[in-house]
Amino acid sequence: MSYGSRIGTEDETAQGRKLRFQSDDMSSRGATPAPSIGTSMGSEVRQMVHSVALPPSSTFWAQMKEGIMETFFADDPFRQFRGYKGKQRWFVGLMYIFPILDWLPKYDKRMLKGDLIAGLTTASLAIPQDLGYAKLANMDPIHGLYASFVPPLIYALLGSSRDITIGPVAVISIIMGQLLKNEIDPHEDRAGYLRLAFTATFFAGVVQASLGILRLGFLVDFLSHAAIVGFMSGAAVTIALQQLKGLLGITKFTTSSDIVSVMRSVWTHTGEWNWPTIGLGFFFLILLVATRRFSQMRKRFFWCSAVAPLGCVIVSTLFVFVTRLDRKGIKVIGYIEKGVNPASFSDIYWTGPLVARGFKVGVVSGLVALTEAVAIGRTFAALKAYHIDGNKEMIAIGTMNIAGSWTSCYVATGSFSRSAVNYQSGCFTAMSNVVMAIAVLFTLLFLTPLFHYTPECVLAAIIMNAVVGLVDLRAMYLVWKTDKIDFLVLAGALFGVMFVSIEIGLLVAVIISFSKILIHVTRPHTALLGNIPGTSMYHDIKQYPLASNEPGIVIVRIDAAIYFSNSNYVRERILRYVNDAEDELAVNGGIPLQFVILEMAPVMSIDTAAIHAFEELNTNLQARGIQLTISNTVGKVITTFKDGGFVDLLGQEWFFLSVSEGVQVCSILIKRKQQAMKENYADKV
Amino acid sequence: MSYGSRIGTEDETAQGRKLRFQSDDMSSRGATPAPSIGTSMGSEVRQMVHSVALPPSSTFWAQMKEGIMETFFADDPFRQFRGYKGKQRWFVGLMYIFPILDWLPKYDKRMLKGDLIAGLTTASLAIPQDLGYAKLANMDPIHGLYASFVPPLIYALLGSSRDITIGPVAVISIIMGQLLKNEIDPHEDRAGYLRLAFTATFFAGVVQASLGILRLGFLVDFLSHAAIVGFMSGAAVTIALQQLKGLLGITKFTTSSDIVSVMRSVWTHTGEWNWPTIGLGFFFLILLVATRRFSQMRKRFFWCSAVAPLGCVIVSTLFVFVTRLDRKGIKVIGYIEKGVNPASFSDIYWTGPLVARGFKVGVVSGLVALTEAVAIGRTFAALKAYHIDGNKEMIAIGTMNIAGSWTSCYVATGSFSRSAVNYQSGCFTAMSNVVMAIAVLFTLLFLTPLFHYTPECVLAAIIMNAVVGLVDLRAMYLVWKTDKIDFLVLAGALFGVMFVSIEIGLLVAVIISFSKILIHVTRPHTALLGNIPGTSMYHDIKQYPLASNEPGIVIVRIDAAIYFSNSNYVRERILRYVNDAEDELAVNGGIPLQFVILEMAPVMSIDTAAIHAFEELNTNLQARGIQLTISNTVGKVITTFKDGGFVDLLGQEWFFLSVSEGVQVCSILIKRKQQAMKENYADKV
Repeated sequence: MSYGSRIGTEDETAQGRKLRFQSDDMSSRGATPAPSIGTSMGSEVRQMVHSVALPPSSTFWAQMKEGIMETFFADDPFRQFRGYKGKQRWFVGLMYIFPILDWLPKYDKRMLKGDLIAGLTTASLAIPQDLGYAKLANMDPIHGLYASFVPPLIYALLGSSRDITIGPVAVISIIMGQLLKNEIDPHEDRAGYLRLAFTATFFAGVVQASLGILRLGFLVDFLSHAAIVGFMSGAAVTIALQQLKGLLGITKFTTSSDIVSVMRSVWTHTGEWNWPTIGLGFFFLILLVATRRFSQMRKRFFWCSAVAPLGCVIVSTLFVFVTRLDRKGIKVIGYIEKGVNPASFSDIYWTGPLVARGFKVGVVSGLVALTEAVAIGRTFAALKAYHIDGNKEMIAIGTMNIAGSWTSCYVATGSFSRSAVNYQSGCFTAMSNVVMAIAVLFTLLFLTPLFHYTPECVLAAIIMNAVVGLVDLRAMYLVWKTDKIDFLVLAGALFGVMFVSIEIGLLVAVIISFSKILIHVTRPHTALLGNIPGTSMYHDIKQYPLASNEPGIVIVRIDAAIYFSNSNYVRERILRYVNDAEDELAVNGGIPLQFVILEMAPVMSIDTAAIHAFEELNTNLQARGIQLTISNTVGKVITTFKDGGFVDLLGQEWFFLSVSEGVQVCSILIKRKQQAMKENYADKV
Repeated sequence: MSYGSRIGTEDETAQGRKLRFQSDDMSSRGATPAPSIGTSMGSEVRQMVHSVALPPSSTFWAQMKEGIMETFFADDPFRQFRGYKGKQRWFVGLMYIFPILDWLPKYDKRMLKGDLIAGLTTASLAIPQDLGYAKLANMDPIHGLYASFVPPLIYALLGSSRDITIGPVAVISIIMGQLLKNEIDPHEDRAGYLRLAFTATFFAGVVQASLGILRLGFLVDFLSHAAIVGFMSGAAVTIALQQLKGLLGITKFTTSSDIVSVMRSVWTHTGEWNWPTIGLGFFFLILLVATRRFSQMRKRFFWCSAVAPLGCVIVSTLFVFVTRLDRKGIKVIGYIEKGVNPASFSDIYWTGPLVARGFKVGVVSGLVALTEAVAIGRTFAALKAYHIDGNKEMIAIGTMNIAGSWTSCYVATGSFSRSAVNYQSGCFTAMSNVVMAIAVLFTLLFLTPLFHYTPECVLAAIIMNAVVGLVDLRAMYLVWKTDKIDFLVLAGALFGVMFVSIEIGLLVAVIISFSKILIHVTRPHTALLGNIPGTSMYHDIKQYPLASNEPGIVIVRIDAAIYFSNSNYVRERILRYVNDAEDELAVNGGIPLQFVILEMAPVMSIDTAAIHAFEELNTNLQARGIQLTISNTVGKVITTFKDGGFVDLLGQEWFFLSVSEGVQVCSILIKRKQQAMKENYADKV
């Protein structure tokens, strides 16, 4: 026989483990149960086909090390240390912690120009948005500005994304607003509410940084894309509808966020509608939407939609200041204190029952913020083809929020819309965040009194216009087209947010995401294989209806690693194929079932539970007089089978290199048995 | 070109969707970005290789139906309904609910004989064990007997296992004992403790039955085999050590279950050691162990170890009764009331804060009990090759525990040791449970007063002897040999139980099991492929060190379905292979990297997040001047790629039928480009 195509070349054997199942040692099978079909496999039959080789073995520590590296250091974060030694290594390490040390020395005029323009453009977008978002979190407008000053500066030191723009965002603001007001009423206990907000921000930062330090960043991957799209869109709709309060000038408004309560609030308070407010608000809303459309159509004028909000704020403020329409019921922001972020370290609850509540809110908003920041970072990194270390980013985001919680900020993260403007304005490095922070600082120090007459309805219009972009209809359509079940996930999160509450929407998103994972791992794909006529290939008979069964043999392919979570299912599923085949035989007649061939090529690894399941399967099949055989195992799987004692239990001769070789052997054995029965019958007659 | 081996035979195309990517429609690519390598693929190059076909499409509802069937009805529970109509169907349905209707009409004398012997043997083992196990749960001995009467009867009506023996078991007893005493002190509030125990039992039954009815039985598969082995062994050691209290005659004993507290209790109370108790206890312990060893060696005498406990109880009771050693400090069971199970329906807490606590204990003990019962059912079903519907079993177990909670029982389940005795004694059907229940009933009605003088040290010896079998050293060794990381899981659960507490041990087992699943789904296996010299095969270069790289091409195989939970990892991992290849080129020189070929044969499905990741990967590679190509996708994956718009984005010509065809095309393109560069250079010179 030719060993040419045998898996495991000669050289590999030479350097690897010597153990292999040779036709020669078949005789020493000893305790292996004899094939239940009643005819022992002749050595000449066995000689027809190839033997299966064991791969070179690896030690316990090698296995452990590889497992840990792939789990926690899959992105090879220390590749930049390679080739450095001694002192250099320290500097590279510092550069790893502070990426600014990497790019600042190479910084030039061209970059500065790009970052300057980008930073000022994003600032003009950020300042009006910040004032509005803070209201979503039930905080004073000034806290929005605070959160656009300290966090971006810290991020510029630590972050590795060149395009992300840091600051408060709509979705996090509303999550914090909704969750915090469940704990403390912001109107009754203003100071307590603020303290709880800083506490939550602190813990959000701690959770974010810890995930990064422990290299558990992959946990954010457990939120499915569909669930995020659904949740974000639902939150955007919720936020947009809540702006009706400001746009219509209503005073008594529901604190619930579901659209039923909001719309009821709108229609039961028609008496409160203030027509000057409505006129002003909708005028600027239409203006903003028109500018956005224009910018979308003419990419060259993208900056129009970026500076439009600040323009609207300036124009409307002047208008109200001149006309004094605030006396006619148009609500204005009013007095904003001047000055840079005050310290808030001592405001954080360090003891007492509110620590736990702050922690809870912090975990939720921190994780959502992280998901958003990481997604933004990755998107722009892909566009410019640089690498982002997800865990490193988490440490940066977490540190900046910890610092933020000590300087009167609430949770900040990357903003989709502002990062896009930053990118389009031609930013080069995180310096654009510094520029933006300086612009915000300037505003804090000198310009806040100018916002006194800024009408709230214009802020509402700015927010409404901003969040509409979060309703990602294209992504929804794509999910619908690609995977209907994913779309149900999306719809669940969407309707959960819109019709119940932010918390329920998030909960639905998380639960559905996890259920998907769990169902996915318990229900691996399997297929019944048949022969493609005229070839030696065996394919899924569902996909290839022409494929034909081999008489007396059931061939099943298993399409996933077999673990405790799916081993029982796999066993049951194989038995079901066998039962179906026997049912069909009972109806149509034919050669009785004598062999099951399992095609294991796609099975990349198995564990002890899988071996257990295979043992049970073997016991069950033996009791029915059916022989289990296994074909095409990869090296790791055959090693586990061997170590788990299953190779000895089943008998080495029942492991085949390929399905077609297995079918060859089994067919000959079936024919022999039939002949023997015939002769037996003839003798008796 | 020959289409002979093209995936998707002619007939399949005829009946399936007509859509396929022909070389012809390559010209209509339109918006597809041109290959970044700067040389468009000539149609004559494309003609060299095969096209990729789309499989026949299926509708939304067909997809949904298949998904639901595979998830919840994977074991095809309704197969017995096939071929029946009208009234017959009703009867088959009744038979499905009450399997007794299936076997009772066929019941004959031979079966009765087998079940009678098996039932009486298990009863002789069960009665002394029950008395002891009840003490583990801090209940009166009589409750153990109650739980061996009602639940087995109900199970006989509803259960489909023919070999399982129902009753209280050691591990569940200690779990309930430990968890319940955290809520109510059994010595201070005896009645309240009992009521809470019945409440927990009721909810255990409800949870078990609900899992079955909702067909969520697969959830018990989430406890990994290794974690269960570790937990069970740890619990067995804990239980055995706790028996030292009875064996040494100590009165004041710790209520903690960790071995440190227990051993400290033993050595700090040496003054309480009672020598008559120790003598009697250890005498019978040695006797029991010796009998067990004897039975293990001579399989014919397996019944010796089965009846030995009852023998010990009878002999020791007579001995104490005659010698009146109870006056010398040997503790005896004392008075046990006569009579059948009293009703306890009204004892269950239906309102108040204790409902939630009872529920908590019920969920934990119910799930562990279920895991045990299902495992036993499956083991023996495999031995006799009959089928067990896991979800159906859960309904039976749950119903029997609900009934038990109304009749003064605590959680019962299948016992490994008694089921084995039942099987070895030659049981045929669940009738053996009925026989055992009748024997227990007889005991309850007439024999309980006889246990008055039964020494507690003998019960302790019986329990110690029984649980030692749960320490499964062979399974531990097998896990160690098969999978070192699995062994860490096992050790975690084992030490958690032994050194901390039952709850912590369980928690460790559950958390580690889930972490394993989650890590498994986020970190799929990938491999760098190389060409096996002299063939057209491409294999993992780690497994086949001889395999050689193709110049200018990186070939990566992905070995799992790509979902949101692993899509980011997969993208990062592929980029890492590319980075490594570029690093190596930077050192050694060579043809610059121009193509990445992804071998997708093992990828059985992808979702929208995967498409997202591929888009990002493509963007990143394009920015570096590397072309992404994809080979060997299965039907479902290529359909999702198409629906998700990725086929149009990447360009249909970059999908290959196999790696070798991809390499063929890419190599030609690389050579052409080199030639063009040379000519260009020559022209310039």
